Amino acid sequence: MLIDYGLLLENVRRVQGIADSHGVVLRPHIKTHKCLEIARLQLAEGAVGITASKTEEAIAFIDGGLPSLTVAYPLIDPAKVDRLLVAAGQHGTELRLITDSDTSIDAIASAASRRQVILDVLLKIDVGLHRCGVKENSPDLLRLARRLESEKSLRFAGLLSHAGHAYRATTPEEVADVAREECAILGRVRNLLKQHSIEVSEVSVGSTPTVLASDSYEGITEIRPGNYVFMDNTCVRLGLITPDRVALSVMATVVSANREYLVVDAGSKTLSSDLGAHGTGGSMGYGTAYPLGSYSAKKGGVPVVNLSEEHGWLRREDTPLRIGSRVRIIPNHACPVANLADEYVVLGEERHPLRWRVAARGCVR
Amino acid sequence: MLIDYGLLLENVRRVQGIADSHGVVLRPHIKTHKCLEIARLQLAEGAVGITASKTEEAIAFIDGGLPSLTVAYPLIDPAKVDRLLVAAGQHGTELRLITDSDTSIDAIASAASRRQVILDVLLKIDVGLHRCGVKENSPDLLRLARRLESEKSLRFAGLLSHAGHAYRATTPEEVADVAREECAILGRVRNLLKQHSIEVSEVSVGSTPTVLASDSYEGITEIRPGNYVFMDNTCVRLGLITPDRVALSVMATVVSANREYLVVDAGSKTLSSDLGAHGTGGSMGYGTAYPLGSYSAKKGGVPVVNLSEEHGWLRREDTPLRIGSRVRIIPNHACPVANLADEYVVLGEERHPLRWRVAARGCVR
Repeated sequence: MLIDYGLLLENVRRVQGIADSHGVVLRPHIKTHKCLEIARLQLAEGAVGITASKTEEAIAFIDGGLPSLTVAYPLIDPAKVDRLLVAAGQHGTELRLITDSDTSIDAIASAASRRQVILDVLLKIDVGLHRCGVKENSPDLLRLARRLESEKSLRFAGLLSHAGHAYRATTPEEVADVAREECAILGRVRNLLKQHSIEVSEVSVGSTPTVLASDSYEGITEIRPGNYVFMDNTCVRLGLITPDRVALSVMATVVSANREYLVVDAGSKTLSSDLGAHGTGGSMGYGTAYPLGSYSAKKGGVPVVNLSEEHGWLRREDTPLRIGSRVRIIPNHACPVANLADEYVVLGEERHPLRWRVAARGCVR
Repeated sequence: MLIDYGLLLENVRRVQGIADSHGVVLRPHIKTHKCLEIARLQLAEGAVGITASKTEEAIAFIDGGLPSLTVAYPLIDPAKVDRLLVAAGQHGTELRLITDSDTSIDAIASAASRRQVILDVLLKIDVGLHRCGVKENSPDLLRLARRLESEKSLRFAGLLSHAGHAYRATTPEEVADVAREECAILGRVRNLLKQHSIEVSEVSVGSTPTVLASDSYEGITEIRPGNYVFMDNTCVRLGLITPDRVALSVMATVVSANREYLVVDAGSKTLSSDLGAHGTGGSMGYGTAYPLGSYSAKKGGVPVVNLSEEHGWLRREDTPLRIGSRVRIIPNHACPVANLADEYVVLGEERHPLRWRVAARGCVR
């Protein structure tokens, strides 16, 4: 698994620039890379902190010294909240959680109360993905916000959403529409709460597609994209970038050939079987393989038309490659690919590539 | 990731019984579990050795003391063969490789020659998956077999095939047809080589579906199924087993709920996005979730209808579960699921579950 350092840095800076130009802070989601070195790079370039999706993943980054962290996942187990509080307490980490149910508020409040801390909690709003979050017209909305205000061990920090349904779009315009709608929903929720004297200090949104496509930032204070550090075929398919901006690839070798297919030594245990994010499809195959010589220009890419666990299939008619040829494969979805490896090989200016660990991979407890 | 020890043992014994009843040896593929404890169990129950798919995966098992190992992958890099020879030499491990090209024979022969050993090599035959292997009507067949006979550092050990296209079947009868055809092809290849005075001492086949469905064993000496230790929804879909024989499941908790969906804390980074093996589909969703209470009877299972990276979606109308409820999810394809975790929690007779490491996960070099 290779990172082109120059492209990584460019992607990090470009999205930091987007945040700066709209006057919002950037709190990147580290579930994409799970890598301390990349998180530190994001902070060095201006990010205010990071976002994580799992308790132990978050603790790996707290232990790694990241100063501010939002766990953007509805925790309902007081023991998990407690582990986070202990780790954050040890390192002086600023910690924020999210919630979308009474069960979750109970868990967070009881853990915070036991540790005698006041914990910032954002209310998760469903802006169209229909996964986690409270809908704007739900009676739960006001009730849960009031609970967050009244619990002694909690502080209502604001609203948080993820417009993952942007991945179902087919053009940048459709992605921008999703972001506009997200912004409008959050504005209405903020106004509703204000009418009930509940102040919303932060409004946090974020997905790589919407951040790249949107100009709708009214009332938004923070963005949390993750995938943008690497990008992938999904961003290309959505028309948001050209392939030459993708910073993550998988090196593979043609190990076998028959009349119809070339077989490379990267399969579903390396590339994942993802066709896109959030169960979306739309990809032509399981990644795009570029001959080593033409990789930097991203010319002559051919689809990986099928996968076994350790094999990828290229159509022989698509390419003059032969046994022994090397390719670099751009994945459909970078996040599960990074999660399948233990380290990145980082290609930069130096003669010897760096090796960075996927530090928070497989953190389960 | 949970293993029911009783079901695991039953699956191991049942397939050992199939091998014994047909007078063939069992050399299970460990790419499914990547776990030393399970490999040792398979050997204790009668397996003659193991099969691996990657160099470093194989070395993890050589270092773990497994006495006999076939790397069923066409290696074309002498450095990889050399690493295997060094590890096998240190531990006195019996090592066999496969080949399907001149490049591969060159690599294996040069490494073996440099280490002054004689290495057993099987010729891989394509019996219909059209991935690796030589076709029976290819002029390469006789030429490569002759090369294996004539190279001083190699010994032609026989034929090896994998009927992975059995996963494209829809009934046990279709799977049995695939196995019958595989057996017939290998018989014809053996006869052809015999006509040219090349003796085929071993004929190794193997996939879990064909082993479960087939009675075609004429001329076969060895089977190499892997998935059978766990089984999964794919075996159920093919009509080969009932769900109660599946030994691997993923424990998850309902963490959020909206009007349409319940959300559990297991997504594509836990269940994989596989719909089947070898790029096959046919599954209803991304696994089947059973309420904890009804898991052992495997009643009341509902499909995981969509996945994000850390979220699985259940339809609310399918189940009375609520936030906090636990489920056990049977995966579509067990092999990539095992590859996503660091350890198994093994539920047996004891009060405290065992923890077994996925020792050969992520072995890349």
